[in-house]
Amino acid sequence: MEDILPNKKKARIMPKDLLPRSISINSDGTCVTLIDQRKLPEKLEYLYVETWQEMVKLIQSLAVRGAPAIGIAGAFALVLFFNNQFGDICAIFTRDNALTSLRDIAQKIAQARPTAVNLQWALDKVLADLGQIPKDVTYQQLSSVLLKSACKIASDNEIECKSIGEHGAKLLQEGSNVLTHCNAGSLATAYYGTALGIIYAAFNQGKINHVFVDETRPLLQGARLSVWELNQAGIPVTLQCDNMAASLMRAHKVDAVIVGADRIAANGDVANKVGTYNLAILAQYHNIPFYVAAPTSTIDTSLQDGSYIPIEYRNKNEVFESLPASVNVYNPAFDVTDAQLITAIITEKGIFRFPYSF
Amino acid sequence: MEDILPNKKKARIMPKDLLPRSISINSDGTCVTLIDQRKLPEKLEYLYVETWQEMVKLIQSLAVRGAPAIGIAGAFALVLFFNNQFGDICAIFTRDNALTSLRDIAQKIAQARPTAVNLQWALDKVLADLGQIPKDVTYQQLSSVLLKSACKIASDNEIECKSIGEHGAKLLQEGSNVLTHCNAGSLATAYYGTALGIIYAAFNQGKINHVFVDETRPLLQGARLSVWELNQAGIPVTLQCDNMAASLMRAHKVDAVIVGADRIAANGDVANKVGTYNLAILAQYHNIPFYVAAPTSTIDTSLQDGSYIPIEYRNKNEVFESLPASVNVYNPAFDVTDAQLITAIITEKGIFRFPYSF
Repeated sequence: MEDILPNKKKARIMPKDLLPRSISINSDGTCVTLIDQRKLPEKLEYLYVETWQEMVKLIQSLAVRGAPAIGIAGAFALVLFFNNQFGDICAIFTRDNALTSLRDIAQKIAQARPTAVNLQWALDKVLADLGQIPKDVTYQQLSSVLLKSACKIASDNEIECKSIGEHGAKLLQEGSNVLTHCNAGSLATAYYGTALGIIYAAFNQGKINHVFVDETRPLLQGARLSVWELNQAGIPVTLQCDNMAASLMRAHKVDAVIVGADRIAANGDVANKVGTYNLAILAQYHNIPFYVAAPTSTIDTSLQDGSYIPIEYRNKNEVFESLPASVNVYNPAFDVTDAQLITAIITEKGIFRFPYSF
Repeated sequence: MEDILPNKKKARIMPKDLLPRSISINSDGTCVTLIDQRKLPEKLEYLYVETWQEMVKLIQSLAVRGAPAIGIAGAFALVLFFNNQFGDICAIFTRDNALTSLRDIAQKIAQARPTAVNLQWALDKVLADLGQIPKDVTYQQLSSVLLKSACKIASDNEIECKSIGEHGAKLLQEGSNVLTHCNAGSLATAYYGTALGIIYAAFNQGKINHVFVDETRPLLQGARLSVWELNQAGIPVTLQCDNMAASLMRAHKVDAVIVGADRIAANGDVANKVGTYNLAILAQYHNIPFYVAAPTSTIDTSLQDGSYIPIEYRNKNEVFESLPASVNVYNPAFDVTDAQLITAIITEKGIFRFPYSF
């Protein structure tokens, strides 16, 4: 163990603009550029997306992932539809024609992935903005409102992440060793990240000694994405398998666990990448604080508790390919962590503690 | 979840001799045959070993693994040395020459892997048997005693596993869903297995509904070996990633956790494949019994508690290959589970419960 925790009392300051920007849209709203997160860390490759169907496939295949980034991708998909594809299904433009089609496509986009609430939230927000538009709006005007609305979701998310970072950093002491799971970083958001946003803010305040990253099976978002992102930012990082967390905690190497969230129920139960619930129990057993970082758009007050959050089950081949047909695979993409296990939920509006009321 | 737990109230009876035999030695003690466990499940490939150095390499590279199987492999390595290589270093045979060389080689074999105590135990047992030999023993006689002693370790282990199975099966109710970690099966022992031995015995008594297997990162002994072995035996099996255990437990799909052990301290603390300690904490949180199955040769009463058990750290590339040099990897092969977390330790001599006294 000695060699993995170099004694760096004085943490370095992270240079600016080392973080990746996972998703953006061009100024006329006809093309979305995104990092193909399936290719990292081997290749930093960008994809250029021009149709809403293509975007849905990229969300489903995890080229773009992370609850806030999925929300932004969904809003951008609606823009792509209107600017590049609306003419294909509607010869005559009227406001009502447009709104009907946009609502219909939004419903389809929303089904791309079921667990993260940010996708539905972002689509609803854009549709609500469009609901304000007068009847005599031109195609160009509507297109402009749509693009502005979608872009605001992205820019707001960036501001929220910065704010989450500032709030969360207050919870960490100098010399902290932090464990994180999956990727709740710049790649999972418009910029900066939620859980990693706190780590970046704390690192800039000289509070971070070391970050441990769970590899996050089966798709290795920790090993592939968080390790890459933290290393880009110049933060000392150690990778481990998910099943090594308790051993690491017992060795007193973890001062805090920080993760993101895909949906938070009204009572504070949190759906996040599978393995989060494991970590929360292990943290409680070892008396280590367990923090969840997410924008308030992740909170779904319509659901009383976590048992109502829909959980996505994915393909068995994601876990292991050489299996006889008779062997089943349990492969939920998310799990639900009890509110009681969570020390605090950190949002752009501040720090919430149990019992949660948002 | 519905599809992974077919409603099989009546478990089937496992046909005999479906289990693999991981290691054996020929009748003149010059060649050991073993399954190359690195190749499973893609290929069932046998290796033929004739030198002790080759055996040490195969132990270190995990071609043969599992605490009891490593003990047998170590004893067989000593036989190979004496029958195939003793002449290379010693021109004249005397009992004392032979014993000196055998003790020397045994010391080297014992260092192949540090955590499992069965390796040292098996070598000590063989050397103790040889200590009884009269001064005027011939080379042939000594060779014969050596082979017999090593083979007895293997045959005793098979009997122990059957006994562990019978004792352990009593702890399970009809219709049990069991979760296991790594491979403590026929492949890890002379035959039948420890944790899986209990599952086989309980299955034959109609008590097993379903077995869940942790994939066991980084080397996937669960996904590669236990799934293969259980499927060979016709037992319904579902694979999952290690980080999905808590989610599965919360869904009330696990009635008992059963694992093996690599070394057990005098107080009942258990070193086993990394991730075992995680599982034990998760089982306690969900009020699920947590059982450890091992022959008494795994108990090291010379160590007061688990903190004295040496833990092997392995290469970072076993976890993830595409890592910058600046990124560290925490890769312990084992962890230590507190005796208080263990509901019972099942040995060939019966069932022990906390507070443990062996």
